[in-house]
Amino acid sequence: MPTYVVAAAEGRLDAQLKRAIASGITQAHSEATGAQAFFAQVIFQDIAAGNHFLAGQPMASDHIFVHGEIRAGRTSGQKQRLLERIVTIVVDEARTPSRHVWVYLSELSPSQMVEFGRVLPEPGREAQWLESMSAEDLRFLDALG
Amino acid sequence: MPTYVVAAAEGRLDAQLKRAIASGITQAHSEATGAQAFFAQVIFQDIAAGNHFLAGQPMASDHIFVHGEIRAGRTSGQKQRLLERIVTIVVDEARTPSRHVWVYLSELSPSQMVEFGRVLPEPGREAQWLESMSAEDLRFLDALG
Amino acid sequence: MPTYVVAAAEGRLDAQLKRAIASGITQAHSEATGAQAFFAQVIFQDIAAGNHFLAGQPMASDHIFVHGEIRAGRTSGQKQRLLERIVTIVVDEARTPSRHVWVYLSELSPSQMVEFGRVLPEPGREAQWLESMSAEDLRFLDALG
Repeated sequence: MPTYVVAAAEGRLDAQLKRAIASGITQAHSEATGAQAFFAQVIFQDIAAGNHFLAGQPMASDHIFVHGEIRAGRTSGQKQRLLERIVTIVVDEARTPSRHVWVYLSELSPSQMVEFGRVLPEPGREAQWLESMSAEDLRFLDALG
Repeated sequence: MPTYVVAAAEGRLDAQLKRAIASGITQAHSEATGAQAFFAQVIFQDIAAGNHFLAGQPMASDHIFVHGEIRAGRTSGQKQRLLERIVTIVVDEARTPSRHVWVYLSELSPSQMVEFGRVLPEPGREAQWLESMSAEDLRFLDALG
Repeated sequence: MPTYVVAAAEGRLDAQLKRAIASGITQAHSEATGAQAFFAQVIFQDIAAGNHFLAGQPMASDHIFVHGEIRAGRTSGQKQRLLERIVTIVVDEARTPSRHVWVYLSELSPSQMVEFGRVLPEPGREAQWLESMSAEDLRFLDALG
């Protein structure tokens, strides 16, 4: 039940790479947190030439920046694993040294997150949350997963 | 005194819809928190085709994602009402089932937010904050409201 | 070790201004926090016409919005100075009254931030963090600074 924004220079990631990274992050999130894969949203941002700076200078190197917003309540170990997995996925898929990969994880209280029109459950209460969904909403989720 | 970013597929929201949603969110924020309407900033992000994924797959359904950053210090009840109102506004204006609406609310300490060039007051101290503004700044705010 | 996103109307900031603002924010961050300048990332977002609203109305004034994500652990005084410096930089470079400048600072635990492929150190532990880098990564950082 997270949202990940992946920002890189326009043209850096083609359709196939975007799909592989979206899929990899979704799986990493699911494995590290135990949350169902079908909840992750990934949005790519193509940074236009001239809009990216590092150390006050125009970005002259490769650079891929992943910013996740996840439910608060994960352990440090889970978050650590998640960060490591995301770095590995980006490095492997985009074939770039890890020094060009940045990842931030922000935490939000589940009570301040609405997904599929409904306030999210605390981590571990996903089953009850799903049970209380309408048949139509459940069919929609099933079709995703 | 919040900022809301509304992300949807390019072409999903026309000018009229954007205006209606911006106006609705602004009013919802004002009603739920008691803050003056003229402080809300709403920015739309048009997500280009190929940049949006759900459950590791290209987004195949309607999807509207609202991300607000509000001052910390609201009660759970206020935040709950705000979330519900925003879902209702998006559902009504964009004519979409609520399962396609996501809303996140992040909280920031007012001491870490500058608007109109000045650090924000704690919730409830807006009047004093306004009183200490220059005549020119106040005229600007009045013209907005 | 922060990321700053600077959002303004498309066409508002030309290449020279973007560079001056990126450089100014980077320096401000370094001076206010003591962090090395070469760690700051600045991304500009050009807001398309029709996508920006204030008080429920289409934005009719100048408006520059800076959103920083910095490591948690700074003092109130450091954050205050940082906010003031950023407002001054934007006012001076973009030649706009301060009432058109908004700045938000979000804080993230360093343990939830990866830069240059590695989890960030707590404020004050930068030297050890740098020492543990590979020679190749250090050369990359040196070339930036």
